[in-house]
Amino acid sequence: MSAPVTIVAHPPETVEGWYVLHQIFRLDRAMLREYADGSMADLRAGALDALREVAGPVDAGWSAVVPLIGSSADVMIVHFRPTLDAIGAAQRRLAAEPLFDFLDVVYSFLSVTEAGLYHITAELAREAVARGGAVGDAQYRQRMDERSGEERESPHVRRRLYPELPPDMPYVCFYPMSKRRAVGQNWYALSLDERSRLMHAHGLTGRRYAGRVMQVISGAIGFDAWEWGVTLFAKEPLEFKRIVTEMRFDEVSAQYGEFGDFYVGRATSAAEWLESLI
Amino acid sequence: MSAPVTIVAHPPETVEGWYVLHQIFRLDRAMLREYADGSMADLRAGALDALREVAGPVDAGWSAVVPLIGSSADVMIVHFRPTLDAIGAAQRRLAAEPLFDFLDVVYSFLSVTEAGLYHITAELAREAVARGGAVGDAQYRQRMDERSGEERESPHVRRRLYPELPPDMPYVCFYPMSKRRAVGQNWYALSLDERSRLMHAHGLTGRRYAGRVMQVISGAIGFDAWEWGVTLFAKEPLEFKRIVTEMRFDEVSAQYGEFGDFYVGRATSAAEWLESLI
Amino acid sequence: MSAPVTIVAHPPETVEGWYVLHQIFRLDRAMLREYADGSMADLRAGALDALREVAGPVDAGWSAVVPLIGSSADVMIVHFRPTLDAIGAAQRRLAAEPLFDFLDVVYSFLSVTEAGLYHITAELAREAVARGGAVGDAQYRQRMDERSGEERESPHVRRRLYPELPPDMPYVCFYPMSKRRAVGQNWYALSLDERSRLMHAHGLTGRRYAGRVMQVISGAIGFDAWEWGVTLFAKEPLEFKRIVTEMRFDEVSAQYGEFGDFYVGRATSAAEWLESLI
Amino acid sequence: MSAPVTIVAHPPETVEGWYVLHQIFRLDRAMLREYADGSMADLRAGALDALREVAGPVDAGWSAVVPLIGSSADVMIVHFRPTLDAIGAAQRRLAAEPLFDFLDVVYSFLSVTEAGLYHITAELAREAVARGGAVGDAQYRQRMDERSGEERESPHVRRRLYPELPPDMPYVCFYPMSKRRAVGQNWYALSLDERSRLMHAHGLTGRRYAGRVMQVISGAIGFDAWEWGVTLFAKEPLEFKRIVTEMRFDEVSAQYGEFGDFYVGRATSAAEWLESLI
Amino acid sequence: MSAPVTIVAHPPETVEGWYVLHQIFRLDRAMLREYADGSMADLRAGALDALREVAGPVDAGWSAVVPLIGSSADVMIVHFRPTLDAIGAAQRRLAAEPLFDFLDVVYSFLSVTEAGLYHITAELAREAVARGGAVGDAQYRQRMDERSGEERESPHVRRRLYPELPPDMPYVCFYPMSKRRAVGQNWYALSLDERSRLMHAHGLTGRRYAGRVMQVISGAIGFDAWEWGVTLFAKEPLEFKRIVTEMRFDEVSAQYGEFGDFYVGRATSAAEWLESLI
Repeated sequence: MSAPVTIVAHPPETVEGWYVLHQIFRLDRAMLREYADGSMADLRAGALDALREVAGPVDAGWSAVVPLIGSSADVMIVHFRPTLDAIGAAQRRLAAEPLFDFLDVVYSFLSVTEAGLYHITAELAREAVARGGAVGDAQYRQRMDERSGEERESPHVRRRLYPELPPDMPYVCFYPMSKRRAVGQNWYALSLDERSRLMHAHGLTGRRYAGRVMQVISGAIGFDAWEWGVTLFAKEPLEFKRIVTEMRFDEVSAQYGEFGDFYVGRATSAAEWLESLI
Repeated sequence: MSAPVTIVAHPPETVEGWYVLHQIFRLDRAMLREYADGSMADLRAGALDALREVAGPVDAGWSAVVPLIGSSADVMIVHFRPTLDAIGAAQRRLAAEPLFDFLDVVYSFLSVTEAGLYHITAELAREAVARGGAVGDAQYRQRMDERSGEERESPHVRRRLYPELPPDMPYVCFYPMSKRRAVGQNWYALSLDERSRLMHAHGLTGRRYAGRVMQVISGAIGFDAWEWGVTLFAKEPLEFKRIVTEMRFDEVSAQYGEFGDFYVGRATSAAEWLESLI
Repeated sequence: MSAPVTIVAHPPETVEGWYVLHQIFRLDRAMLREYADGSMADLRAGALDALREVAGPVDAGWSAVVPLIGSSADVMIVHFRPTLDAIGAAQRRLAAEPLFDFLDVVYSFLSVTEAGLYHITAELAREAVARGGAVGDAQYRQRMDERSGEERESPHVRRRLYPELPPDMPYVCFYPMSKRRAVGQNWYALSLDERSRLMHAHGLTGRRYAGRVMQVISGAIGFDAWEWGVTLFAKEPLEFKRIVTEMRFDEVSAQYGEFGDFYVGRATSAAEWLESLI
Repeated sequence: MSAPVTIVAHPPETVEGWYVLHQIFRLDRAMLREYADGSMADLRAGALDALREVAGPVDAGWSAVVPLIGSSADVMIVHFRPTLDAIGAAQRRLAAEPLFDFLDVVYSFLSVTEAGLYHITAELAREAVARGGAVGDAQYRQRMDERSGEERESPHVRRRLYPELPPDMPYVCFYPMSKRRAVGQNWYALSLDERSRLMHAHGLTGRRYAGRVMQVISGAIGFDAWEWGVTLFAKEPLEFKRIVTEMRFDEVSAQYGEFGDFYVGRATSAAEWLESLI
Repeated sequence: MSAPVTIVAHPPETVEGWYVLHQIFRLDRAMLREYADGSMADLRAGALDALREVAGPVDAGWSAVVPLIGSSADVMIVHFRPTLDAIGAAQRRLAAEPLFDFLDVVYSFLSVTEAGLYHITAELAREAVARGGAVGDAQYRQRMDERSGEERESPHVRRRLYPELPPDMPYVCFYPMSKRRAVGQNWYALSLDERSRLMHAHGLTGRRYAGRVMQVISGAIGFDAWEWGVTLFAKEPLEFKRIVTEMRFDEVSAQYGEFGDFYVGRATSAAEWLESLI
């Protein structure tokens, strides 16, 4: 669709999967307790229906309840959906429940699961230059469509774009991040080869945690001030400390990573969470 | 009107169109639900009248309702008007409605649609120097008035200054931005030629999205701490991620762009929005 | 009074006029509407008396009501007074009115009108050095007292220190600013000659807007975290965009200016504003 | 578990002990006073039961009540626990008490006590290189497991990982901190040897305060935006000023330390604190 | 007590006097007015007793009421006390008064009056080096104890450590500050000699205001994120602008000063303040 252009620092091709919404709520326990006399059972029943409904939508995706630990907020609800409209529908379904009148959204983060094809982009860019063409020309686009199509259908990319809640990894850690654009240290001014090299090394760190930590990377450029969301699932919460520490020493994070707030919790069933409210 | 002066790093000539106000509201659903018994129909009817009134003002401009998705705020209402006073009138018309007592303005952004005549300014500045004159002298001013007058009346500039809500692009993305004035990386210290070159390349990126994304650029210098507002309309929300990502690699954004919060939603009719509130 | 000292980067002599207080209020319309039944007329009458009283104080100065446009706040009230105590009295007079219980002060800025005598300070500093003396010695002090006394009484300085509300310039724009003290770009480490040169060029930009924009500069060092307040009055609100844009390209702003939030509105009578509240 | 890899700037091995949660509360005294008539005794009795329960959990760890002095918040409650789940349980136990409806969590900080084995890591890394191996290979891992196991069981490390509330040091000071990752001054880009040297010197400063100040260092990477928490206990509160000042001149803090807010108070019994509320 | 060590950039010796707490309150006038019917006299009488009690504590120190001018907060209460516990007692005494339920603490700052012995520290450090010893060795410590003991008892240091409210200087200005630790401009990396030189020059500026402005410097390292508090008292409020401006051009402030918010007011009697509330 795009006309061929020669770009020096061009973005990597990406493939996208589900939209993701992280909603962080704070419970007004005092108000709920005051209001609870008699009607708490109704509030719970209504919220349980809604949470079960959003947990398994008819089309695709899922939602999970993650009560937070060690935070001034109370619970994170994460929604994965195939379309932005379905995200909006999940959000409205919960907001319609009177129980959610006692739950203030103190933070929310909209993004879409993403796999960055750094390596393929760098490879095809080199090919294009070698044949005297340019990044983005017809031949490049055709090759990229083939390659990205293959990637999109590969099992390991599908797992990243359409992740399932791992049943044996109840601990969840979420944080937003961006790449630095400081004077003298600017991710967006690096060559794609350099970015490809740095992301490859970073990926190796993640792989050493396979089976212990599952990472979901979602892109937020165009949706949020932060550029990516990282959602980690683990069997053991100390793994969050280990993997994030190790990654912070990766050259890409050490030099170019900027991090937001961290939210840590343990996923549970809607029913169990609702019982624990007051 | 201005006396001729020699300026090294002078601003580009700009032409302005409509004032724009982006109002971001958060709904106090708990209060509304409590208050709603019996009077909700009246509240809705009043708000519908007001929203229809501001949607199509007698003089010119329009207002649109954009329920937000994935945000902790609930709705963005955007007003385009020929004068600042008409912006004030639209704002007061909504505030006068009792339903808006339940909608807190959590962010607002005042600006005016703008087309930056970087290329023409650079050209006439070179002309002025070539003839031994100066930027801003009588001859420069006369030439600029002619050229900017032509631009202002050209269809492609009119579309940017007096944009219409594209009926087939219901998805909306708004964010404020500024140009960096850091030590060693300062937009306001670049020559106009350099700024012209960078903005031209940036414009090409935008054009590759023609038919898929409509951009409205509005200037806020003198009205807000952020210097510009960017309002994008798209058929498909993933385009926001694509265009903003691609632009972030443009030299001008990579080196000089600073971005604020992002607000994403889907425009709808006032009636539909009002029905969805509780 | 001060003993003579040799200072390298010394401040410019300044002359001061009236204290200024900018108060930005947000109206709690929901509360006011609820409370209004029956007593709104009394609230308005009381507030009108108070606003008329502060508008024309017995000693000197004035206060003006500026309903804001395009802001999440509702109104700015600006007070000019000969003493800090008179500022406090105006503030207390309004706070005593029950209507002001519905108006939260969301921002306030205390400063004093100021004219910076950069040129004279630089000149007398050169004189002192030439005669083998020092900045601040008895002779310098005597000369400075003469020169600053003359300046203080000159009509153009009096207009800056004791400004009147221009009847044909109802649009108002207020923002605070500071001079940068970054590593490698530090206003407070420049020589007075350099600062004098930069401020002179900046002044020329302002003068080109004479008759279209009136500027009031007030100093806030020792009173606020921001160092200056800028209050602009204009016939036409687009002039705010023009003058602030042009000044942002002045070397002094491009390199050393840091800006806060902007508040834009249109001055009106107390009565008219009070009628528009709900 | 990890495959052998050669890493240039790798993290130090750490050993972890108890999870720690610092909860900072602000009391809504007005609401409590209004509510107190008649039921204050019940509120206190319930809260006392809960605080005693969390103070001495069945498994391990402890919780302490530290009324704050000189803060706009009112009290800090610190929980040490062997697991993240036990932290969550303590948090829920307090939240379930109606008295805590009047106590808003204004800040909270989740971390885990940690001892950084900088010296051992540097030593084993040198060994690995000397024998032609690499950091993280099987031999390195085996040696590290031995050495870190010994460390973990040594009395001085156990005191840091499983600290007891020192009975003669009632004054408490808590603050979060991070290591700088600025352009040109980046902790995460230093060699481990350099980091080891800097931390060693820093440790010496702390040791000079032995018997006067007890330090608890807890790691928060992966749990919070700040990377570490520092909790100091002292006999005399002026020691906080002395030790923090002295450490701020240590090269590691001077060049790489970033500090958050400070919370200072005096630990007391739950009963005494509850008596002092209103 | 400390073992001798050689430190390159060591802190200056300091002597400390009274603890200081600055409490900034905002009055909820609407609530107070609503509540006032009938019970306002009781509220005032209770608060007057409490304020008189804290104004003249039995041991030592004092507290003062400073209604703020030109701020969005309403009043600052400053407490000087010999111990941290006495600060806590003053704070609790006020909080126990029902009137203070209508006064929210919007900012508070804990510190301790301090005199930095830069000159003596530099001198003794040079002595130590000259005799082949080290900063902090037994001989250095002994000499320092003598010298700092003398300083502590000298009238001019006692005036700084145990300041009295100057009866003819009712205007008060308070602001917190820190020394910069930026890359390339780091106070904590300067030699003590250099810091001593810069602070000496800064002190001279302050002395030129003797009799017009009284400065109280209090240290907050270990107690607050800001490192120092500056409390100025003046006969005439314009002196705040003059002294802070002049100091901002001192090399130490120009290069290393970072400043927080400013609070300006006029001290008054508790009774007078209480009368002015509504």
